[in-house]
Amino acid sequence: MKGVDHLAHERNKAEFDVDAMKIVWAGSRHAFELSDRMARLVASDPAFQKDGRTRLGRKELFKNTLRKAAHAWKRILELRLTEEEAGWLRSFVDEPSFTDLHWGMFIPAIKGQGTDEQQQKWLPLAYKMQIIGCYAQTELGHGSNVQGLETTATFDPETDEFVIHSPTLTSSKWWPGGLGKVSTHAIVYARLITNGQEHGVHGFIVQLRSLDDHMPLPGITIGDIGMKFGNGAYNTMDNGVLKFDHIRIPRNQMLMRVLQVTREGKCAQSNVPRQLIYGTMVFVRQTIVADASTALSRAVCIATRYSAVRRQFGSQDGGMETQVIDYKTQQSRLFPLLASAYAFRFVGEWLKWLYTDVTQRLQANDFSTLPEAHACTAGLKSLTTTATADAIEECRKLCGGHGYLCASGLPELFAVYAPACTYEGDNVVLLLQVARFLMKTVSQLGSGKKPVGTTAYLGRVQDLLQCCCDVQTAEDWLKPSVVLEAFEARSARMCVARAQNLSKFENPEDGFAELSADLVEAAVAHCQLIVVSKFIDKLQQDIPGKGVNQQLQNLCYIYALNLLNKYLGDFLSTGCITPKQASLANDQLRSLYSQIRPNAIALVDAFNYTDHYLGSVLGRYDGNVYPKLYEEAWKDPLNDSVVPDGYHEYVHPMLKQQLRNARL
Amino acid sequence: MKGVDHLAHERNKAEFDVDAMKIVWAGSRHAFELSDRMARLVASDPAFQKDGRTRLGRKELFKNTLRKAAHAWKRILELRLTEEEAGWLRSFVDEPSFTDLHWGMFIPAIKGQGTDEQQQKWLPLAYKMQIIGCYAQTELGHGSNVQGLETTATFDPETDEFVIHSPTLTSSKWWPGGLGKVSTHAIVYARLITNGQEHGVHGFIVQLRSLDDHMPLPGITIGDIGMKFGNGAYNTMDNGVLKFDHIRIPRNQMLMRVLQVTREGKCAQSNVPRQLIYGTMVFVRQTIVADASTALSRAVCIATRYSAVRRQFGSQDGGMETQVIDYKTQQSRLFPLLASAYAFRFVGEWLKWLYTDVTQRLQANDFSTLPEAHACTAGLKSLTTTATADAIEECRKLCGGHGYLCASGLPELFAVYAPACTYEGDNVVLLLQVARFLMKTVSQLGSGKKPVGTTAYLGRVQDLLQCCCDVQTAEDWLKPSVVLEAFEARSARMCVARAQNLSKFENPEDGFAELSADLVEAAVAHCQLIVVSKFIDKLQQDIPGKGVNQQLQNLCYIYALNLLNKYLGDFLSTGCITPKQASLANDQLRSLYSQIRPNAIALVDAFNYTDHYLGSVLGRYDGNVYPKLYEEAWKDPLNDSVVPDGYHEYVHPMLKQQLRNARL
Repeated sequence: MKGVDHLAHERNKAEFDVDAMKIVWAGSRHAFELSDRMARLVASDPAFQKDGRTRLGRKELFKNTLRKAAHAWKRILELRLTEEEAGWLRSFVDEPSFTDLHWGMFIPAIKGQGTDEQQQKWLPLAYKMQIIGCYAQTELGHGSNVQGLETTATFDPETDEFVIHSPTLTSSKWWPGGLGKVSTHAIVYARLITNGQEHGVHGFIVQLRSLDDHMPLPGITIGDIGMKFGNGAYNTMDNGVLKFDHIRIPRNQMLMRVLQVTREGKCAQSNVPRQLIYGTMVFVRQTIVADASTALSRAVCIATRYSAVRRQFGSQDGGMETQVIDYKTQQSRLFPLLASAYAFRFVGEWLKWLYTDVTQRLQANDFSTLPEAHACTAGLKSLTTTATADAIEECRKLCGGHGYLCASGLPELFAVYAPACTYEGDNVVLLLQVARFLMKTVSQLGSGKKPVGTTAYLGRVQDLLQCCCDVQTAEDWLKPSVVLEAFEARSARMCVARAQNLSKFENPEDGFAELSADLVEAAVAHCQLIVVSKFIDKLQQDIPGKGVNQQLQNLCYIYALNLLNKYLGDFLSTGCITPKQASLANDQLRSLYSQIRPNAIALVDAFNYTDHYLGSVLGRYDGNVYPKLYEEAWKDPLNDSVVPDGYHEYVHPMLKQQLRNARL
Repeated sequence: MKGVDHLAHERNKAEFDVDAMKIVWAGSRHAFELSDRMARLVASDPAFQKDGRTRLGRKELFKNTLRKAAHAWKRILELRLTEEEAGWLRSFVDEPSFTDLHWGMFIPAIKGQGTDEQQQKWLPLAYKMQIIGCYAQTELGHGSNVQGLETTATFDPETDEFVIHSPTLTSSKWWPGGLGKVSTHAIVYARLITNGQEHGVHGFIVQLRSLDDHMPLPGITIGDIGMKFGNGAYNTMDNGVLKFDHIRIPRNQMLMRVLQVTREGKCAQSNVPRQLIYGTMVFVRQTIVADASTALSRAVCIATRYSAVRRQFGSQDGGMETQVIDYKTQQSRLFPLLASAYAFRFVGEWLKWLYTDVTQRLQANDFSTLPEAHACTAGLKSLTTTATADAIEECRKLCGGHGYLCASGLPELFAVYAPACTYEGDNVVLLLQVARFLMKTVSQLGSGKKPVGTTAYLGRVQDLLQCCCDVQTAEDWLKPSVVLEAFEARSARMCVARAQNLSKFENPEDGFAELSADLVEAAVAHCQLIVVSKFIDKLQQDIPGKGVNQQLQNLCYIYALNLLNKYLGDFLSTGCITPKQASLANDQLRSLYSQIRPNAIALVDAFNYTDHYLGSVLGRYDGNVYPKLYEEAWKDPLNDSVVPDGYHEYVHPMLKQQLRNARL
């Protein structure tokens, strides 16, 4: 970083060891060093420059992404990067591309659902990128409801082949990234039919394009589905449409780890447990939660730095105006988002542990914790992605008018993040799954079945229905046990109340449908409790670094008390706290904002983002915002000429006309 | 509309007279017929086609907008349209352009702030578009704080001129629409300096470009500020940057209706009341509220129609799946937005009346209602624009994955609407103004000063502090007096509680700063009350048309009870209602959703939007979504060739490489 640091005075205010916090944020010294090295590698390579991406038309933009993907691959090979390093490098290139799906979905699907033989055949090709794959599940008419997919895979015993076919327009595969223009292969999900019988939806490896000239194979119609939300953003990706006209593939291209189809077309379950699929879901959703904390922290970093740079109002006697970060209205919107970034980071870390735990249990044929782990990851995926999408937009607003410029980086960050609320499970559908699990758990409490993991607190439901919040002063709200009990009591009471309402219906499914909006609220309360409790757990750990633990405490209570304020109706209607206690929580919150204020810039510095990765003039490390914003403006294509294209045809005649007919 | 109507079965369900509702929505038969005629005129003219706008690069897009503006002007003259008709035509062209600022800001500023002579000189030129003007207020460093603007206008008595100058980089004008590439003139806001003394910020008419060759005049640096959020959207507008290097203009180009500068450089207040400026603000913000209901209703129309088209889950025995509009989770998110569209429409209508009332009073030198009218319009601008921006994004999510495609129309609708939360007063800054007014009103209650207009209820504060909600059954929540009292009591109690907290501070300004986030909450409560009460007033009017009043009642209570549920913490913490009553409100809300359900499609049909204006494949009138979505995809430039540009350079070598070094 050269030149004057306009935020140096802010950095000097920090009351904690920023370098230690960087390691806390990264999760370990190893992760910090590795990601730091890869971030700098990408940032210093002119081939990975991101500037101007939002100004490109679709074709240029896409070609540019192909160029970067090729360059990234070249560097990965030249530097002999490990798989972990390569993953970091790709993420810092920060541009959605077909490689995301190839490495993130195609390869894992073969690993997870392919037999050993299939893995031996396909993985080496994929690892060397001699084939490029995507993941073709959703269709024009079906997203959330995977069991409703219409594409068929009919076994033909005469030729020992599957016939893959799109029987309707709505069965066209729609959305898969990397499909539209690049992938040579796809994992295609289709209804398996053998001997006239349906056997559910399964995955098939299907070649789409010729490896010689890249033309689609006969019977395959394939293309890009068109522009998506935002400038740059996912328009760098060739989300695609795909129709099959009776395409034949060999039988051994069905992924057969769990279900096998024999030469005769008989289905045989293997001895690999089906539950493995849930393990994969836990894995994918855990990465989504980690990504949420990353996206949120980028937006918060931009908004926090610019809030310290920007001044508005409050000038006295011609002096400097007030930094907007000093306004309580700004703090009360910004700091809870800063706290959420840390909160999501830690719950993401814990989910990583949960995935390992689940995997080990699965290997030991212990499926007991799987439903709880599945509900918990589904819920956290929903909670963190919804909150993050909203938060990015809030950060844009917190930057005032300039947040609306692409140069702020926030419009693209929002547009590129928004689909996370829909993909890998629509967020409302996921919350309904959580609610269903919670209702089941509550209904089994009487039978003595002990709830596990994140639902263990429901085992103490009798206490939680009666407990009474022990808060007399604002400081009482800084006790972990008090905060935890308030969140547990709220969630438990909401669950029990919903269960009672459900029991009034003769048909439980009718009740579930009728009360689904209320049930979603209970699911949200449960998920918020998980995030709060994992943050509190984190505070109990031995965290090195001067002042680090104190900052984390402040953030933890900001996260929790802001939720309490925002969802006050829940807490009051269930009688978990009194209005007076709510008011004390609010007082405590204001005091926490004051304590965080001097540390705010250092707390976003701890994310360790390069200016390249942030991609925001407003969020520049050095705070030199206005000259750079001014510089940036002139790069717009409209400024190529002083008099704009179209002036002579359309504006000049208007200015020079002689009006006769006008009534105006 | 040709072809099969896939939503006919939905339209047949309607229990009210849709044509009568169209007139209610439009405000009058006259407004309906006029807007209907203009909408069809635009929709049927191929020159106004909008398809593909989101695929254009910046230059093409901008040139296309110039073309449409010229064509619109041509049609306006040919058809001899009135100013009202021309305004409708421009709004249905539905593309932000320099003409918006010319007609909406430049001309009104001259009318409002220019002397009679100035109006006689400049208005005819502007009306004939022989000059094109914009409104140059905000600067790179100053938006909200108009008094902080840095541009100077220094009077030079020797030449009888003003010298307009940008003394710093941050004083560059920044954001004005129409400035970057098109305007020949601007109203420039600058600090008036005469005889070495400052006299606040005033408006000046400044020529920017030559009327012959469109080149910027000497000493003027001018350009476009670059890409903004979204595809299409405001990128059709040349928001600009402008720097002055000692530009001289004649003295008579300062807008002098309120303050005059004499030949000697003396300032003289005219006998025109300064308060007129507030009258203008009431006018502008009233149009913003009307625009909010329009933007919101467009999004709701798209989401409602597609929710009836889209089916997901719930298929039994291979039958049709459930329409997503039948899910209670969908209804509980969608129907309150439908209700909000109507609520904002009616409060906007009322604001139009308020503006007329204020204007008449100003002309009679009655300034008594001005502060209240100003606070009320500021608050409603904030409330409706924030709610609308959030609602458009919610509607996008309600369309599932396909909402993310530009073809849904929702991404552009969001991006083009988002700045409304910032321009004409940042929404949080405005709420603080409302809060300040409320605190003043409360503090004056003791002195016997009677609150007027929308704050009249505070005159009954003693009753409202003690009243107790008379709800025993869910049906009780359908009584206007009950709902109104609950909202009045909530707002009054929040105001009084905040006022008491403020009184604990020695310095009231310190208190206001410290408690500002709480004060904003009170302002929101007050503004929501206004919307609810104006909706209830509307129900009392004699509205012709079978079943129309019943539908409006349902929408009104959905609007109110949904707010009650969402802001339950307010109602419970102030003791306005009990948890049991809240639960009854929730039951009533569910029942209202069921009642609205069969009427939902007809209620959005009543907005009378053409498919051209909606610009959404998902929101098509005929519901023929999937075939059209499929058709639309192929129009993307990426589909111009089967093998994408960049394949040979970047993808083919990757597929064909021989790997030696790789660690992978």
